[in-house]
Amino acid sequence: MRGLWLEDRRLRVRDDLELPAAPGEALVRVLLAGICGTDLELVKGYYPYAGVPGHEFVGRVESCPDAPEWVGRRVVGEINAACEDCRACRANRRSHCERRSVLGILARNGSFAEFLTLPARNLHAVPDELADDVAVFTEPAAAALRVLEQVQVGPGQSVLVVGDGRLGTLVAQALLGTGCDLLVVGRHPAKLERLAARGIRTGLADSLPARAVDLAVECTGNFDGFGLARGALRPGGTLVLKSTYHGESRLDLSALVVDEITLLGSRCGPFAPALAALRSGRIDVTGLVDARYPLTRALEGFEHAARPGVMKVLLEP
Amino acid sequence: MRGLWLEDRRLRVRDDLELPAAPGEALVRVLLAGICGTDLELVKGYYPYAGVPGHEFVGRVESCPDAPEWVGRRVVGEINAACEDCRACRANRRSHCERRSVLGILARNGSFAEFLTLPARNLHAVPDELADDVAVFTEPAAAALRVLEQVQVGPGQSVLVVGDGRLGTLVAQALLGTGCDLLVVGRHPAKLERLAARGIRTGLADSLPARAVDLAVECTGNFDGFGLARGALRPGGTLVLKSTYHGESRLDLSALVVDEITLLGSRCGPFAPALAALRSGRIDVTGLVDARYPLTRALEGFEHAARPGVMKVLLEP
Repeated sequence: MRGLWLEDRRLRVRDDLELPAAPGEALVRVLLAGICGTDLELVKGYYPYAGVPGHEFVGRVESCPDAPEWVGRRVVGEINAACEDCRACRANRRSHCERRSVLGILARNGSFAEFLTLPARNLHAVPDELADDVAVFTEPAAAALRVLEQVQVGPGQSVLVVGDGRLGTLVAQALLGTGCDLLVVGRHPAKLERLAARGIRTGLADSLPARAVDLAVECTGNFDGFGLARGALRPGGTLVLKSTYHGESRLDLSALVVDEITLLGSRCGPFAPALAALRSGRIDVTGLVDARYPLTRALEGFEHAARPGVMKVLLEP
Repeated sequence: MRGLWLEDRRLRVRDDLELPAAPGEALVRVLLAGICGTDLELVKGYYPYAGVPGHEFVGRVESCPDAPEWVGRRVVGEINAACEDCRACRANRRSHCERRSVLGILARNGSFAEFLTLPARNLHAVPDELADDVAVFTEPAAAALRVLEQVQVGPGQSVLVVGDGRLGTLVAQALLGTGCDLLVVGRHPAKLERLAARGIRTGLADSLPARAVDLAVECTGNFDGFGLARGALRPGGTLVLKSTYHGESRLDLSALVVDEITLLGSRCGPFAPALAALRSGRIDVTGLVDARYPLTRALEGFEHAARPGVMKVLLEP
């Protein structure tokens, strides 16, 4: 089959890939896949992965020996394939499975190919009224909703989202529905306008109040964003880390103690609420797709996705 | 009056200090005061404080214009004097008051003197059956109990305390009563034996299980302790920072995201439960006092307190 292949920090389109085969798992024909910040980091070599990258997708099930009722259905899929047997799995923390593979990230070929495989229990049916180019946002929308599984958010709370990019836009919409007093700051007036049009209060990153907000969610993917979030947080507040940075960061841990700050790492989230939020329009992805490329031009797609200010680039097999 | 004076990283005993005077506040004659790690850091210049250091004490109220019923009572006192008017105070987070003074740490002369002052609302009466050299541990015992205000701890949870010193010993005892599966690791066999004698499971710091515990409390005061706690923590676990480190630390924030770790700063705690825990013996400080020095020999006391392995040195005015 055709697919994008990453090896030694080099991406190339290959036509000679074996059809993925995993006993019992669903074989899914990829309809549309999204390029994420993590994919760009994989190419930079920040994670030691070789194989087909890509973890955002919508597809159709071709075969599924373990659960044939899935065949023919349009699906999205949770990206962590768990062993169901380790301490984490037994404690119902499957996304932290000690022996997991992760679609397009760890020991499992991903979605930038004609086909992928996943265990049937990772699949979620896509409602008919959800177009492919909306459903393809299920994984990042789920990651945005993860914050609400970890932190109580509601009316009366002042919440800051730092970052007006892909992730910030989804997180902001996930939080808006809670009734909290929400502010999104960024550096791109056009993106902030798009958020403002959705009823979200926005501001430029350099006009933040100091030591004032109850909860800050860092969505920029760079350490400057962390500094902004930390500076805006009141003592006793919570800082959710939604994006990752390469390498080590320098942190004043004593100040975290004195101010009794909570730092909270946040990763993959729940798919069913994400599909519901995309369906209801609570999370609206209209206008977030900058470009679509066929898989044969995937390298151009990657270059496009890496340009500053680009929200989402999709790949079509 | 006589008191210890810190200025430009230099400690000296002075006999010419003014009696502290603050309108309406309680004037407290200090009976006994404890030297804490923070005091040693103040002398190293890690915090820009000039004045009388010391924040652990037991004393007797000499006068109290605002609440004369306190006169003659033996007391301990919360160290943060709040403005009662800022955002933090109005939200009932008085220990994070934006205009607070802190006994012997920030803009308020401390307990290494014959007298100190505190607002009456900071005072707690000491039960008669609690000896001075037990009551003087109220402040650090409260700091240990603070963890239980911030994190749910109970049976079935595996909890690690890193550090067998002053703070670790108090935190371990605070946690033991919750019924959690508790392990304390340290580097001093004699101290670990003392904890084991109190029914606490102990181990040496180099034999820790990896990625296994639900909750880790870092009580060592050095960054190696942080590394031990972090390494022992399971994905999704919580790391409570109880001790402070000078300067910035290098941290892999991405790993916090991938493992969805919670880092939680923890500072001052509740005095009433601390007094109750010292009274019931749930927190037992027997044998923790290494030496007592008169205030005239406070400099010797500080040298003694700074020696490796020393638990608590007390000063008597």
